[in-house]
Amino acid sequence: MSTSPHAADPNNLLAMTGLEAMRAILQRDRDAPSITRTLNYWLSEVDEGRAVFEGEPTGDILNPLGIVHGGWALTLIDSACGCAAHTILPQGVGYTSLEAKVNFTRAITLKTGLVRVEGVVVSPGRTIITTEARLTDAKGALLAHGTSTLMALHPKQS
Amino acid sequence: MSTSPHAADPNNLLAMTGLEAMRAILQRDRDAPSITRTLNYWLSEVDEGRAVFEGEPTGDILNPLGIVHGGWALTLIDSACGCAAHTILPQGVGYTSLEAKVNFTRAITLKTGLVRVEGVVVSPGRTIITTEARLTDAKGALLAHGTSTLMALHPKQS
Amino acid sequence: MSTSPHAADPNNLLAMTGLEAMRAILQRDRDAPSITRTLNYWLSEVDEGRAVFEGEPTGDILNPLGIVHGGWALTLIDSACGCAAHTILPQGVGYTSLEAKVNFTRAITLKTGLVRVEGVVVSPGRTIITTEARLTDAKGALLAHGTSTLMALHPKQS
Amino acid sequence: MSTSPHAADPNNLLAMTGLEAMRAILQRDRDAPSITRTLNYWLSEVDEGRAVFEGEPTGDILNPLGIVHGGWALTLIDSACGCAAHTILPQGVGYTSLEAKVNFTRAITLKTGLVRVEGVVVSPGRTIITTEARLTDAKGALLAHGTSTLMALHPKQS
Repeated sequence: MSTSPHAADPNNLLAMTGLEAMRAILQRDRDAPSITRTLNYWLSEVDEGRAVFEGEPTGDILNPLGIVHGGWALTLIDSACGCAAHTILPQGVGYTSLEAKVNFTRAITLKTGLVRVEGVVVSPGRTIITTEARLTDAKGALLAHGTSTLMALHPKQS
Repeated sequence: MSTSPHAADPNNLLAMTGLEAMRAILQRDRDAPSITRTLNYWLSEVDEGRAVFEGEPTGDILNPLGIVHGGWALTLIDSACGCAAHTILPQGVGYTSLEAKVNFTRAITLKTGLVRVEGVVVSPGRTIITTEARLTDAKGALLAHGTSTLMALHPKQS
Repeated sequence: MSTSPHAADPNNLLAMTGLEAMRAILQRDRDAPSITRTLNYWLSEVDEGRAVFEGEPTGDILNPLGIVHGGWALTLIDSACGCAAHTILPQGVGYTSLEAKVNFTRAITLKTGLVRVEGVVVSPGRTIITTEARLTDAKGALLAHGTSTLMALHPKQS
Repeated sequence: MSTSPHAADPNNLLAMTGLEAMRAILQRDRDAPSITRTLNYWLSEVDEGRAVFEGEPTGDILNPLGIVHGGWALTLIDSACGCAAHTILPQGVGYTSLEAKVNFTRAITLKTGLVRVEGVVVSPGRTIITTEARLTDAKGALLAHGTSTLMALHPKQS
């Protein structure tokens, strides 16, 4: 949790509603964040209460056994959950992830190819938002699934 | 979970005990896995039931708000938990992560600098191993903490 | 996790498939387990990969603030997840819960009245089964939701 | 999460600091909550950032296989985590549990006898508090362990 996670906001995302901000990222009005380039995944769909990323494993994310490191699935699920939550926030409201929990249900290798992770809001509270996401391969086989709890950061009333 | 995650094993890690394999990685007899180069972290200590990584955030792992993406802490904690479990495995026994759960307790930025994540085995079962890890900055402030459940993959008796 | 959780099996449930065992409990051929009487909930539906319980909070399960203790929702979700997993097990195969994770999304009080918890299998592995469950009130409002990881215990080959 | 979980507060616990309230419960100045009688566990120690319960399984909490239901361990760990968090709250500040996650590491039966669960605060944030707890038998064997995230509910400034 951050005490002030949007001190930065280099892209001025907080000037929009959450859904507008996510759509701006989808339409490349805003630069894609560096993590998505580094780990080779990208936002592909966004709606109120829902965000989808696609990605493809590369040789840059392998563990010592030559398998895709669990951190890749963790990151994609964390992104899908966080962005799904972001879509329901009003203008000026930031958020932070409190926790994430993921089950790994199938090994991911370079042969897995294109994957898709869909995150949805489960409980749209004003302060606490819970979400879940599923990561699947191109045939729909479940690779991992998880949940995440987010906290909305409302600006102080003046 | 993988049905046979060590089909690969390019570095022949399964010919050693888990602790020997981890020490070989620590001493660079084996190449460091690509994920650690990509996300800029490295194994720094290993003992029976314990593994420590250090790392430093870079501009390659930022989220849209300019903060280090939660996936970085998730990956470091997943690595520390998995490697701690690995250190207690006999020769020829692989493992797979079943799940990981992480709390984010403080935002990580480029100013955070060097971090350290220590994973330890909590319950050293023959088949199911539970672990926990804490991620801290150079002053000892807690950035994230988590747990992970691993399954040992014993070779079939012939 | 139990090393031999079905040493007991007083109701001979392992002589049936998991779905038959759950249906026998539903039809009261077998006594309801004591936990369900103590915490006032009961099995109401069962299918392959799915189990539903209903329940109603009583004055016996309150916390110091006069609210229903979180343990009640935890127990109902754990039951729904475990029983959903049980329905897909072959005859003679037991199971044990490895972990459960629950989000509490709305306080439960004596005024909440009748609740329903539906558990479903998410990943039906031979050894590792993942599940999820949602607890709702009579109007469908979400009270809690969670996931659980179960391990099937196959008898040793002779 | 409750929108106003301390609407009730029949024992006027919010008039004290959290540590005073927990000590009042320990010293029986306040009635023990009904859940602890129903599930046969009791507060045994409390300090700043720490709460310990003891308990003993009874025939009232068994699952269909004659084993103690997982809900018992879940409830004890949830109590230990919540009460540990409560001890660090100022006067007038309530709290609610956002989520709990528990690993079951050893089956609990009627033969297990007296158990002890110790909860401690891991991250004492002003709004978000993270905690962990371990449940052990009289010989110190680990039965279950878990974590929980709590949110402090500060009264609105007038």
